[in-house]
Amino acid sequence: MGYQHILVAVDLSEDSKVLVDKAVAFARPLNAQLSFIHIDVNYAELYTGLIDINLAETQHNSMEASLNQLQDLAKYAGYPINHTLVGSGDLSNEICDTIAEFNIDLVVCGHHQDFWSKILSSTKQLMNCTPVDLLVVPFVD
Amino acid sequence: MGYQHILVAVDLSEDSKVLVDKAVAFARPLNAQLSFIHIDVNYAELYTGLIDINLAETQHNSMEASLNQLQDLAKYAGYPINHTLVGSGDLSNEICDTIAEFNIDLVVCGHHQDFWSKILSSTKQLMNCTPVDLLVVPFVD
Repeated sequence: MGYQHILVAVDLSEDSKVLVDKAVAFARPLNAQLSFIHIDVNYAELYTGLIDINLAETQHNSMEASLNQLQDLAKYAGYPINHTLVGSGDLSNEICDTIAEFNIDLVVCGHHQDFWSKILSSTKQLMNCTPVDLLVVPFVD
Repeated sequence: MGYQHILVAVDLSEDSKVLVDKAVAFARPLNAQLSFIHIDVNYAELYTGLIDINLAETQHNSMEASLNQLQDLAKYAGYPINHTLVGSGDLSNEICDTIAEFNIDLVVCGHHQDFWSKILSSTKQLMNCTPVDLLVVPFVD
């Protein structure tokens, strides 16, 4: 179980705290490093037909807001957080890149069990590409 | 992280030992209970058009062989194993029933990353129904 660097993928909802608590409980006895990642909605991908001139700024503001929320979550954790990362784009790609870059060996993420998540879940995509262990925490909706 | 009863879902391939090692590493510091489950192919479901008179016996023999392999795996673990369970039928249903019956709070399972597993994986089904945490260990094919 000797995990050295644990990455928590958070959606910044209230559920994120559950994930953070779990990850801290894992990290503390191992004295492991802990990092957070949040993948923002990529506006450019969503609205391919309607590219607004303020798009870059909106995306920038949104990432800044996410970063603030991540820092709040880092305070909540009560455990040193190595990196708080905000990305945009495809969740599973971004996380797999991060795994390689930061030598992550455990990813903690949530999985909602509602209808749409069952069909479209990014956790499933992540499962298909992660080279490291994945702890999936269920959120029953 | 205070898991009390960890269930390892094994397919009885060589990869199973990796899962068992991980699960033991989790269980030992927590002094948690550890159980194994293997879900056999359900012959009756596979060959609905051709029900042989020896079907029940074949199924019985197959379950007995699995049970022997599970017991070998239990010896390999070098950790007390509470239950070694062999079921047949739908993997995710069987495991979710087991979770409730034995108060499981962590399921450890593997996920192959080949083409067919990505499409048909029972780990994905499990993710959609498990009420408890799921540790997914990737097997890169």
